[in-house]
Amino acid sequence: MDGELEVIRRIAARVAPRGGVSVGIGDDAAVLDDGTVLALDMVVDGVHVRRSTHSPADIGHTALAVNISDVAAMGAIPVAAMVGLGLPPDIGAGDVDAMYAAMEELARAHAMSIVGGDVSASPVLSLSVAIIGRAPEGIRPVLRSGARAGDVLVVTGPLGASAAGLLCLDHPDAGGDARGALISAHLRPQPQAAHGRHLAEAGARAMIDVSDGLLLDADRLARASGLAAIIDLEAVPRAPGVDAVAGAIGTDAALLACTGGEDYQLLAALPPGAGREPHLHVVGHLEPGAAGVRAMRAGRDITPGRLGWEHRGGASPPAEPPP
Amino acid sequence: MDGELEVIRRIAARVAPRGGVSVGIGDDAAVLDDGTVLALDMVVDGVHVRRSTHSPADIGHTALAVNISDVAAMGAIPVAAMVGLGLPPDIGAGDVDAMYAAMEELARAHAMSIVGGDVSASPVLSLSVAIIGRAPEGIRPVLRSGARAGDVLVVTGPLGASAAGLLCLDHPDAGGDARGALISAHLRPQPQAAHGRHLAEAGARAMIDVSDGLLLDADRLARASGLAAIIDLEAVPRAPGVDAVAGAIGTDAALLACTGGEDYQLLAALPPGAGREPHLHVVGHLEPGAAGVRAMRAGRDITPGRLGWEHRGGASPPAEPPP
Repeated sequence: MDGELEVIRRIAARVAPRGGVSVGIGDDAAVLDDGTVLALDMVVDGVHVRRSTHSPADIGHTALAVNISDVAAMGAIPVAAMVGLGLPPDIGAGDVDAMYAAMEELARAHAMSIVGGDVSASPVLSLSVAIIGRAPEGIRPVLRSGARAGDVLVVTGPLGASAAGLLCLDHPDAGGDARGALISAHLRPQPQAAHGRHLAEAGARAMIDVSDGLLLDADRLARASGLAAIIDLEAVPRAPGVDAVAGAIGTDAALLACTGGEDYQLLAALPPGAGREPHLHVVGHLEPGAAGVRAMRAGRDITPGRLGWEHRGGASPPAEPPP
Repeated sequence: MDGELEVIRRIAARVAPRGGVSVGIGDDAAVLDDGTVLALDMVVDGVHVRRSTHSPADIGHTALAVNISDVAAMGAIPVAAMVGLGLPPDIGAGDVDAMYAAMEELARAHAMSIVGGDVSASPVLSLSVAIIGRAPEGIRPVLRSGARAGDVLVVTGPLGASAAGLLCLDHPDAGGDARGALISAHLRPQPQAAHGRHLAEAGARAMIDVSDGLLLDADRLARASGLAAIIDLEAVPRAPGVDAVAGAIGTDAALLACTGGEDYQLLAALPPGAGREPHLHVVGHLEPGAAGVRAMRAGRDITPGRLGWEHRGGASPPAEPPP
């Protein structure tokens, strides 16, 4: 079977949005005419998480977090989630309790509710979480496709912590003082719902969450908007410890931060004159040209061949710069 | 690990509904304050379906059908669905196409849309479908818990076809002329969305879909309403061919129809004076007393020990009457 994106393309070609649906397959979330946003993301052991390194609480947290992030990327507010839980025989009642305690803690922090779902026997632990959110009063959900030439690209926080944390799990001496924080960033990603709402209210014209790597997600936003996204690699804020981990394994720190994935910060296109909160970091801009991302360093295009992560059965190594 | 219902009880004890949620875990669907209903049901190969007997199209159809049925059981109208698809290595692109073509055909028939989802590698084929529906204008979603003593219990159509169809798959000579229709009822269940809406508009005070067997689902409705549900076994309409299949394998036809599960008709409690459409069949009533179901035949309580099906890795044999 082909890669995940090819499967999604085949599926999108088979289904048609009908009455009441503004946006179907293809954005971070679907949008109904009344501003309701809907998303469903899966977390499967051995694909997105590993029970060898992720506790049941980490897995529960992550499964809800990635869905809240999809709602955040629309500038919307999460309301309710449902969980389809595939339980293998070696999962105990205490593990289920721990998963749901972590999900409930995250739900409470976002003033949202877990309202139902289903449970089934399964050979592998899997969580399919569906989420519903609502756009704030007077605000339309922010799509990937609304950017205009001249817009500034901003991210809501430093990148690379999750990828560096994953590398720390495989390299017991890496990370130094930041090791604990990096691993925590990998095991317990924090969705940026408040930032997403503020960006929507500040006039963001396009937005996406950085789930698969800044370059890959910028590429998606750029293609959806029909523009070139120019990313200045050295302007991308890197989380503390990312440089140390990159140095320890001999890879390029900026590329690790920009292709590593799973940071769940938000990438948004803001009009050039829009007010910008101090936590926002300008990482590039949009301009006319071949639709897609270009990663620049000191004026040179060093866009790597692999822009980010596509989950197909496990972790990929970090991208390397071209020679 | 304990049974599915015990897992759901543990989960329900860990999560709390917050603002905007009228009904959380415990009904056919959750309900938001604005009348939005939400459900998520899983279909897993080897648990709910079998790839040896179900085609990819059957599996896709079933996964969406059971979710539409949950919305129907609230008296609501399905609007949009999302699919979390776990794909094992031996599923081909044509299988995915067939699954989504069947889902899309059913979605079109209900004027609803498939709006997104996720795809992941998985050791087993699994579909977690989340659905959103809306109550018709001026109608509140119908819960399991609203029945009152004296209400009449009705079902929207004959029962037992799916269970008899499953038996036909295992008994090549069973079913006679009805064999094809019975197998089709098992492989392609038809959710009763229009009937659900009409029942809500006709004043149904409680409703549930008959997914796990009439007796088990009547038991759930009765317990949620704090009443005794008295089912007259011989008043329960049986689908054509059910008696022949029951005869061929030497089981009680009425009990097969009332405990077999997966018919996806609706069971509703109507006020005694409510108008009843001709397709509705009265199967019993609600009265004060120990909460739960009682199955009566000729004035004798013959409630079986096992009321219906709980999916835990495969099919169960049909219930036998007590000696």
